Amino acid sequence: MKVLVVGATGAIGSAVAQALAGRGHEVIRAGRTRGDHQVDITNDASVEALYAAVGRVDAIVSTAGGLFFGPLSEMTSANFNVGLQDKLLGQVRLALLGQHVLRDGGSITLTTGVAADDPVRGGGNAAAVNAGVEGFVKGAAVELARGLRINAVSPTLLTESMEAYGALFPGVETVSAARVALAYVRSVEGPLTGRVFRVWQ
Amino acid sequence: MKVLVVGATGAIGSAVAQALAGRGHEVIRAGRTRGDHQVDITNDASVEALYAAVGRVDAIVSTAGGLFFGPLSEMTSANFNVGLQDKLLGQVRLALLGQHVLRDGGSITLTTGVAADDPVRGGGNAAAVNAGVEGFVKGAAVELARGLRINAVSPTLLTESMEAYGALFPGVETVSAARVALAYVRSVEGPLTGRVFRVWQ
Ligand SMILES: NC(=O)c1ccc[n+]([C@@H]2O[C@H](COP(=O)([O-])OP(=O)(O)OC[C@H]3O[C@@H](n4cnc5c(N)ncnc54)[C@H](OP(=O)(O)O)[C@@H]3O)[C@@H](O)[C@H]2O)c1
Ligand SMILES: NC(=O)c1ccc[n+]([C@@H]2O[C@H](COP(=O)([O-])OP(=O)(O)OC[C@H]3O[C@@H](n4cnc5c(N)ncnc54)[C@H](OP(=O)(O)O)[C@@H]3O)[C@@H](O)[C@H]2O)c1
Repeated sequence: MKVLVVGATGAIGSAVAQALAGRGHEVIRAGRTRGDHQVDITNDASVEALYAAVGRVDAIVSTAGGLFFGPLSEMTSANFNVGLQDKLLGQVRLALLGQHVLRDGGSITLTTGVAADDPVRGGGNAAAVNAGVEGFVKGAAVELARGLRINAVSPTLLTESMEAYGALFPGVETVSAARVALAYVRSVEGPLTGRVFRVWQ
Repeated sequence: MKVLVVGATGAIGSAVAQALAGRGHEVIRAGRTRGDHQVDITNDASVEALYAAVGRVDAIVSTAGGLFFGPLSEMTSANFNVGLQDKLLGQVRLALLGQHVLRDGGSITLTTGVAADDPVRGGGNAAAVNAGVEGFVKGAAVELARGLRINAVSPTLLTESMEAYGALFPGVETVSAARVALAYVRSVEGPLTGRVFRVWQ
């Protein structure tokens, strides 16, 4: 299959791209500043330009999307909107525009995260955005045409990201990026749709 | 208790305001164009002005918030952002600013909806926004200070709204606004927090 991975230069995305390439798929790597193609998922024209450059694909995988972390007591609606525009609407934009460039039977896989189910301090935005991505996947799955599928992967904290985010997730057992990547393979190659694949201990 | 109901002039809000008033609470009714106070939940300054006018309260209830309904195949990111800015960020704004005007032990109750759990055609935005509201409630509940609580009520289609929205929800058993209002009473007067009260058949 021809698979476009958006966020392919990141901690999760690089493991996903490697796993898919290792299974014989043609992987196209996109990032904001690195990769084969540059794209900004917060911008319609940029995503349209990426799809025009890449052409028809069998699968679109997104492992991109920023959140706002910070104490609820100080959070403003502008802070909260960061995650809405980036991880939520950014990934939804990839899906809404992407449905038209996928081959019949193709798939979309988005990224959510454990904070939707097990909230952490400072994670009010993460809980909402991740839950929103999961809701979108459930809602979109009942409407996609031409046998298209859509799923989300919800990783817990990656072992590779412990130094960066460990303080936010006290006592959480991490998982390897390689193990998280398996869930994306399952979404791309398997038959399921409207699902959230949780990769937790 | 002194309870502020935002959206009190609507189908759900008017039943909630009536139920709370019937239980002896002092109810302040806000709407966009009607009610005791006017407010636009999509605007920080407008919500701040409402809270300044009303003063400290024991409970904030929101039964306001618009969604975008339409076929996924034609949906744009701008369409999708309508619900993000209105029902999701609008209600989050009421909560973020509202946490500072609530008395100790006070509560916030937001409105979600059945489409997060049982998606309908045209409801990709509704599924995401409602799930996002529920995620926010779970996330915020672990951080609120001074014994403050936060819950959401998820109604199915109201009997009173069947003419307006019935075509979107084929075969769905409706519930009365009076029954839905009970869930808001439970959130305001009860001890629970971080919960979604589903009012479905
Ligand atoms: N790491 C974890 O432990 C973990 C756990 C659960 C969930 N998640 C979620 O997984 C996602 C990826 O996390 P990560 O740790 O792999 O992130 P990361 O290492 O920071 O990588 C982010 C990737 O996304 C790209 N990117 C960033 N902003 C973009 C934009 N506006 N448009 C297009 N591409 C953009 C980056 O491109 P460049 O490299 O070119 O800048 C990079 O490829 C996030 O949504 C995160 O919340 C992560
Ligand atoms: N009705 C149902 O069957 C049903 C089922 C499940 C979920 N819901 C959800 O429940 C919520 C309320 O639904 P409803 O049917 O009661 O709506 P409605 O009858 O249209 O009433 C909406 C209320 O919100 C106010 N409002 C609208 N936009 C506002 C804004 N930007 N700022 C402040 N207030 C605003 C309106 O004020 P004015 O009257 O002054 O304009 C009115 O009080 C919606 O989020 C809806 O998705 C409804």
